[in-house]
Amino acid sequence: MIERIAILGTGLLGASAGLALRAAGFRGSIVGWNRGAAGAQTALAAGAIDSIAADPLQAARDSDVVLISMPIYATLDYMEKLAGVLGCDHLVTDVGSTKGQICEAANRLYNRPDRAAFLPGHPMAGKERGGAELADGELFRGTVWLFTDDPECQRSPHSAELVKGWREWVAAMGSKTIDLDPARHDELVAWVSHLPQFVATALSALLQEEVGDAPELKDVGGRALREMTRLGASPYSMWRDIAYTNTGAIEAALQALEQRLADLRENLRTPGLREEFELANRFRQSRPPA
Amino acid sequence: MIERIAILGTGLLGASAGLALRAAGFRGSIVGWNRGAAGAQTALAAGAIDSIAADPLQAARDSDVVLISMPIYATLDYMEKLAGVLGCDHLVTDVGSTKGQICEAANRLYNRPDRAAFLPGHPMAGKERGGAELADGELFRGTVWLFTDDPECQRSPHSAELVKGWREWVAAMGSKTIDLDPARHDELVAWVSHLPQFVATALSALLQEEVGDAPELKDVGGRALREMTRLGASPYSMWRDIAYTNTGAIEAALQALEQRLADLRENLRTPGLREEFELANRFRQSRPPA
Repeated sequence: MIERIAILGTGLLGASAGLALRAAGFRGSIVGWNRGAAGAQTALAAGAIDSIAADPLQAARDSDVVLISMPIYATLDYMEKLAGVLGCDHLVTDVGSTKGQICEAANRLYNRPDRAAFLPGHPMAGKERGGAELADGELFRGTVWLFTDDPECQRSPHSAELVKGWREWVAAMGSKTIDLDPARHDELVAWVSHLPQFVATALSALLQEEVGDAPELKDVGGRALREMTRLGASPYSMWRDIAYTNTGAIEAALQALEQRLADLRENLRTPGLREEFELANRFRQSRPPA
Repeated sequence: MIERIAILGTGLLGASAGLALRAAGFRGSIVGWNRGAAGAQTALAAGAIDSIAADPLQAARDSDVVLISMPIYATLDYMEKLAGVLGCDHLVTDVGSTKGQICEAANRLYNRPDRAAFLPGHPMAGKERGGAELADGELFRGTVWLFTDDPECQRSPHSAELVKGWREWVAAMGSKTIDLDPARHDELVAWVSHLPQFVATALSALLQEEVGDAPELKDVGGRALREMTRLGASPYSMWRDIAYTNTGAIEAALQALEQRLADLRENLRTPGLREEFELANRFRQSRPPA
């Protein structure tokens, strides 16, 4: 059913999807395009794509499925551009970390019987640094790939089949798929993804100021510190769009954590500290081991 | 020089030290004692100790080096008990995570020519759960073992030799040793060890309340969330003593992070966010990769 895939944006996620599709047995064509030519060359050399497109819109027209793998605002930009050139035989999907604005654009521009389909997706996978050189065909294995599709939308039978087909490939890449309402998605990821990132950034920045000038101490800290600050390496360029498109939910999560830390600070010598540890222990007990 | 070692407290660190000493070529005797008999049996079965002592004080008397591997207040308690029964042919050392009160007790009870030596130590190694069943002879490899010895203290020539010998065994176990003033130690570990722990605890507790009741979402989050909450499994029983014996430094570190998170929250849509990410990036760049 899906024979030709175009990956627009061959960074970490885009190139990893190409490798994972191949590993899962996809035998059709995978054409790639990237804003920076070096990233496309790296993806090609790694076998993540078969060829490099000169024109992303032409590559999309020639494909069944278009995977946009770019930061949020670039994704929104390409959703506009692609809606003008694609028809009801195409599926466009994405990997954006916030879904509110993307789903609004999908409702406005896609998902009618005479238009291309758009399936909003969000693989909960990544690394603290991007780029095709870190691409990994196993990146999605054992992870969750969220979808925030509108169950009421009207699609052509062909593009509805493409949606079904893409979901099957996502499962074949090793991901568990979960469907969420876009607003619930953005609230949930503010807690489980955006909050941990901004905490790691703030903690790393604070430690850079407090102990960063003591090179003899740079090995002190061990695994715990390394893990708690690993995401400190994440690039602003990607997180800016997330901060802009999920501001309210991130503000609420940060404020809740600030209050929690203040409460913990005021309870360092009271039984309240025990209760906080026990609640934290329960969170870990209900989750897979680290 | 060191032929007989007593390990009082055969939990994760104590039993790991026994295994690491053997792996590093220590051929003398290692006797162990543990408050709970099961922990000592596990350590014996793992080969971390040769025999189980019936009486910890007698085992200490019969040894050259006594490693106290217990929470802080239990360590202080055994420092008192051991000071009464050991003499200038003995070295006592420890693995406690805060050093202010332990160094005060060392100055008061040890480190005079007619008394046992006490070398305050703190391996920057551990796991989020304790117990001899997790003991690992490689736990200390590549990590830092901090000492907060008083360079002015007067010891017998024999116990001074034991101090030198123990430092050599720590290096042989794979640790890099760093010497710090006790006050500087407690301030530093508040930033690089205690703050990350309490942040992980608060974050895990908050997430337990916010998303813990949604079992279908428990796989969402991936590696980043797993790492940022791994320490949420840490036991209150160990951290209570740390919170009590380093309260001021931990309060200061928590308050600084609360302020930092509030600033970040107010700058989600300003260039201030870029500056915070760049500072965090610099912290990671000056450290080993995760």
